[in-house]
Formats: sequence, C-alpha cells, structure tokens
Amino acid sequence: MTSTTECHQRYMSRALELAAQGRFSTAPNPMVGCVLVNNDTIIGEGWHQRAGEAHAEVHALRQAGTKAKGATAYVTLEPCSHFGRTPPCADALIEAGIARVVIALKDPNPLVSGDGIERLKTHGIEVIVGVLEQQARALNCGFVARMQRKRPWLRVKMAASLDGRTALANGESQWITSPEARRDVHRWRAQSGAVLSSAQTVLADQATLTARHPDAQLQPVRVIIDSQGLLTGNEPLFKELSPIVLVHGPDTVSPQTWPDHVSVLEVPRAANGFLDLVQLLHELAARDINSVWTECGSGLAGGLLEAELVDELVVYLAPKLLGHTGHGLLQLPAFTHMSQVPELNFSDVRQVADDLRIIAVPRRVRGDLTS
Amino acid sequence: MTSTTECHQRYMSRALELAAQGRFSTAPNPMVGCVLVNNDTIIGEGWHQRAGEAHAEVHALRQAGTKAKGATAYVTLEPCSHFGRTPPCADALIEAGIARVVIALKDPNPLVSGDGIERLKTHGIEVIVGVLEQQARALNCGFVARMQRKRPWLRVKMAASLDGRTALANGESQWITSPEARRDVHRWRAQSGAVLSSAQTVLADQATLTARHPDAQLQPVRVIIDSQGLLTGNEPLFKELSPIVLVHGPDTVSPQTWPDHVSVLEVPRAANGFLDLVQLLHELAARDINSVWTECGSGLAGGLLEAELVDELVVYLAPKLLGHTGHGLLQLPAFTHMSQVPELNFSDVRQVADDLRIIAVPRRVRGDLTS
Repeated sequence: MTSTTECHQRYMSRALELAAQGRFSTAPNPMVGCVLVNNDTIIGEGWHQRAGEAHAEVHALRQAGTKAKGATAYVTLEPCSHFGRTPPCADALIEAGIARVVIALKDPNPLVSGDGIERLKTHGIEVIVGVLEQQARALNCGFVARMQRKRPWLRVKMAASLDGRTALANGESQWITSPEARRDVHRWRAQSGAVLSSAQTVLADQATLTARHPDAQLQPVRVIIDSQGLLTGNEPLFKELSPIVLVHGPDTVSPQTWPDHVSVLEVPRAANGFLDLVQLLHELAARDINSVWTECGSGLAGGLLEAELVDELVVYLAPKLLGHTGHGLLQLPAFTHMSQVPELNFSDVRQVADDLRIIAVPRRVRGDLTS
Repeated sequence: MTSTTECHQRYMSRALELAAQGRFSTAPNPMVGCVLVNNDTIIGEGWHQRAGEAHAEVHALRQAGTKAKGATAYVTLEPCSHFGRTPPCADALIEAGIARVVIALKDPNPLVSGDGIERLKTHGIEVIVGVLEQQARALNCGFVARMQRKRPWLRVKMAASLDGRTALANGESQWITSPEARRDVHRWRAQSGAVLSSAQTVLADQATLTARHPDAQLQPVRVIIDSQGLLTGNEPLFKELSPIVLVHGPDTVSPQTWPDHVSVLEVPRAANGFLDLVQLLHELAARDINSVWTECGSGLAGGLLEAELVDELVVYLAPKLLGHTGHGLLQLPAFTHMSQVPELNFSDVRQVADDLRIIAVPRRVRGDLTS
C-alpha cells in the first residue's frame, strides 16, 4: 500500500515538474503535466505549452502510441470533458484505452469540476484523485483563485533595507537591492498575468513595468491605478506596446485619446473614498488574468493589505540600514493594540545574491466572490 | 595528502564540538577542545569547562593515560606555555610524549601568541597550525576580539515586525516576537559576558536583563548606560543580584549609594556629546568581558552602528506588519545618497518558531585598539 502511494507520488511529482515548464507560457490556461505509465515504465510525457494548443494528455498519448492501452495516466489537473479550443482530454484518454487515471487536483472551475472524472468513470476507468493535491494547487494558485473566487492571486512586491525602509528621506532608492534581486522581480513579472502599479510609482520611477528576462514569453498586462488622471501618455510606460489598463475612478478627468494598446477601466469608489480594489480585481479576473504582481508605494500596498486582498507579500530585504528618516514600507492605520496588526506566515526565505527574499502569507485573506 | 587533510579536519571538527560545550561556562576563558588520536583511534577527549579548572588538554591526557605516547593531539587553540591558575598545557603534552600537535588557531593574545608552539617545537614535537582556523576563530570571536583589539565582540539584538517597526505608535511592543524568539534571546544573554542596555530601555520595559534559560550557568554583567542618572535603584533590575555596571558621564548626577552588586563606571563624553562608546567597550574588555549582547532602543543601536562598533546585528523579524506609524528600528543620520548607508552581509538566517532570526555583519567594523 505504502509503495503504491509512493509510486503515485513519484510519477505525479514528475507530472508536476513537466507542468511547471509552462510557467511562462500557458496563461490564462493552467499549467498541466501528464505522465503515462505502463508496467512501471514511463511510456509518454507531456505538458501544456500554450493556450489554444494541445493539452498535456494529448502530448503524452502521442508519445505513448499503442502502448497507452491499459496504462495509468498521471495528470496534475482533472482532464477536461468539454470542447474548448481543443477536444476533451477525457475522451482522448478513453479512446486510447487508458485503464486508470490518477489526478492531483479536481478542476477548480465550479461549472465543470468533476465532469471529467465522471466521464472517465462511466467508461470504466479507475480514477484516483488528490495525489500531491497541495503542490498542484500551489502551482496553479492563480488559475485556482480566478476560478474559485473570481479574483486573481495577488502578490505584492516590496524592496527595503533590513530596517524596513524603501528610500532615503530625499526619495533616493536606486538601488537598495542587488541586480540579481531586480532580475528576480522581472522573472515574477514574466510569470504574472498582470503587473499592478500606481501612476505615482510609474511617474517617480519612470517605470515601463515590462518583463525583461530571458525566460519571458508573454508580457503581463500593465494595470495602472490613476484616479487623479496624472498620466499623460508621454511616459516611458506607453512606449512599450504590451497592453496597458488605466484604472480610473468615476470622477477621473481624462481628456486624452489613448493609443491602441491602452484601455481605460472605470472602477467605482469604495466607502473609504479610494477606488474599490475588490471590484478592480474582479474586473481583472473577468479579463482572464490569473495572477497579479504588484509593485507600488506604501499607500496602495497598505490599502491592499487592509482590504485583505494580498495572497503573498514578496519582500526583498537588502543588507543595508537606511535609518529612521527613510520612507516606510507600508501605510496602515495607527493600531493601538498588538492584536490589531496584520499577521502573516513566512512561507519561503532565500538568499538572492546579497539580499534576502522573504515570502510572507497573510493569515487573513478575503475569500468571498462579491465585493 | 587529501586524506590527511580530511583526517585532520575530522578530528579538529570533533575538538571544536567538544570546545563548544563550554559555551555557557568558560568565560572569561576561551572555549577549547582537545582530541588525542593514536593509530587513527581517538584515545582521549577533553574540553575546558570553567576558568580556574583543568584545560582541555589535561582532560584528554588523563583519559588517554599511557596511550598518549606517540599520539597526535588536536587542539582548537594553541596550548598555553605559561603558568596561570593551572600549569602550562604545552608542558603536559611534552611530558605525555605527544608526537604531533595540530592546532586550529594560534593564541590571539599578542603577548604570548606563538610561545606554546615554539615550546612544543623545541621539544621535537611536530606542529601543524591552521586546521579549521576560521571555525575556531568564530567559536571564540569574543575572546579573540578582547585579545586582539581590546574590545569585546559586540552583538546588537533587535526585534521588529517585517516592516521594521519595534513598537506601535503608542509604545506597545509586547509582544512582537514569539516566546521561542524571546527564549533564544535569553540563550544569547547566557552566552555573553555582558548585557548592554540603556536606562531608558530598562525603565520602559521594567527589564531585569538576566539570563533566564535552562542552559544558563553564568549570569552576564548588566551594563546600563545612564548618563542622565535616571535609575533610582528601586527598579526590578536591582532586585536581581548578578553584577550591574552603571555607566555615567562626567556630569551625571548620582546621589545614590548603590548596593554591593552595583558599580559605577564613569566614561567621558565623545565629540558628539554622547558618552564615548569606544572608551566604554575598552573598559569592559579591561574587566575581562569577551562579548557584549546589546538590547536597547533605536538611539543607542544607531550610535553603536554609526561608530562602527557592531560586530553582529541579530534581528528577530516577526511575521507582522505594524505600519508607518510604528517606531523605527534605528536612528541614523539623514543620508542623502545610497553610497552613505551602512552595508552588511547576511551571515545566518533561520526560522525561530514563527519568526525569522537574521544575523547581519556590518562590512565596516572599527578595528583599532585606541579610541
């Protein structure tokens, strides 16, 4: 029994490894990997490379050919049972004579979840669900978030000195972190459906917010909150032709005609007077954005945290000390008791060149589907 | 050749392991371990337990008995050649007929460094120096610092939220870090010759600054900077009877007659008007204090950093966010350019329960012997 479990985990682990190769290319689709095993031998492997192209199962079945008959398929996500841009994978597995399907994660899309499993079972195929489920969920946290809560997975990136300062008193911040840390940031951008920032940050840094990294395949949508209509269209941001979404409020004055790669998204104001961030995120999910990488100042970062919209805080800490006159990391309410402060869990800590990269997960994250 | 080197490192590694057992008891003496090896077999082991008691070599020789003849001795520190409270260890090794002595670190005391090695050599004993020297130096960083620069090894402990805040706006700070992190702090206190703090911190926290940890054997001297004469003698600090050194300036008004366990150390003011911290540390070294563990506010911590007196910053980062209104970690000058800020290297990062413990080493540390 143990050896069967171990066996399942080993092949699923390989399937997850394959799936992860789609990290920079499958959006808005999930990453999926598939391993076909017959007589304890891998006879086919595949992973989903790009939306609209063949799914992982199809690649693996092609490789296996007739050996697929009677084999076990390890798939990181429940095979689809519907016609999308490609035919249903469940049918392909059935037709190939697969005897057993081991699945890491059920389809998180509430509209179709379980349908693929049902279809396999009605054709007499044994189905096992939940092997390395947690890893599969983590790999596709963005897709799962969009499906299950209609909101992208939201990461907030911050860069600070060891004493939590993001800039000197005079605003100078270039560079607190190392070139390697900044390269790591570009890698995150390349893995994200959108990069979220504010007009203030774009202006202060003259930022383009594109993903400049050798691994980059798709450019993230650049979503810029500009409720005051500060951006003119002449900033370096607009020189790059990947899509830009300008987020305006109902009262934002925006006389500008924008170029083709720029669209304007109007978001209502929330009770606190700021733009409704929950609504904004729902709108981004509706635009098929799985994950948002946020690079912003202490105000927006604090607002996102207060609204419990942050899934992961990614903090680059440089081994420097800027002192008490430096700019702070986060604007939060003036708490009066320790029980009021946001608490997190450190989930990953590693050294990136001279810097530390700390990923912290807020203990409270808004889970509902409506604003 | 490689195998001999590996062999030396293996035995020296064991000797260092033995030495480290004295972590809580040997001060002001260094920790020393000794392993005796004959025909590739360990025939004796020892470590120095307490000042005034037998040295590591003596323990190991006792265990080895007559088997010591022709053996190799691995010692983490150069054997002494002088009569202190115990007879010279070099002589003990010579008398036992040891054939070869492998030493990790030469005696850092400039007055006797090399004498033990010389004595061994003149008696025809082969001597190899420098095996795992760096580890041996790190283990006794306090003793080495006191000997070589007449200043203790200085650690500054800080506890902050992930965004670098030590307390809420209203001063509340209990507790930012976990009980495990606070226990770790007590373990550091127990390993330190002195705990350094300020009257302000003692008053704010009603702190006793004793080492309350199961491993504690010696209590650190509590050194409290009180240039304004704020302490009355009625604080909880004074209820504990381990030694206290009150650090006053030339103009501190101190009408108080202090109890027996309290002494006053007058330190001149430096050019910047603050008490001369370099002078203070020299005075502590002169009192046989190898290492100082500092728990203080952002002012004294900043002053020590600015004076380049900090050997290690030990920062406990809690997975909490206190926001921009919280108290800052460090008071430093208002830098105007990134090239001016103190830079460090992260030397050790580990999780302590829910918190992170980050040890950072300033790249510039004052190295001279005089103020």
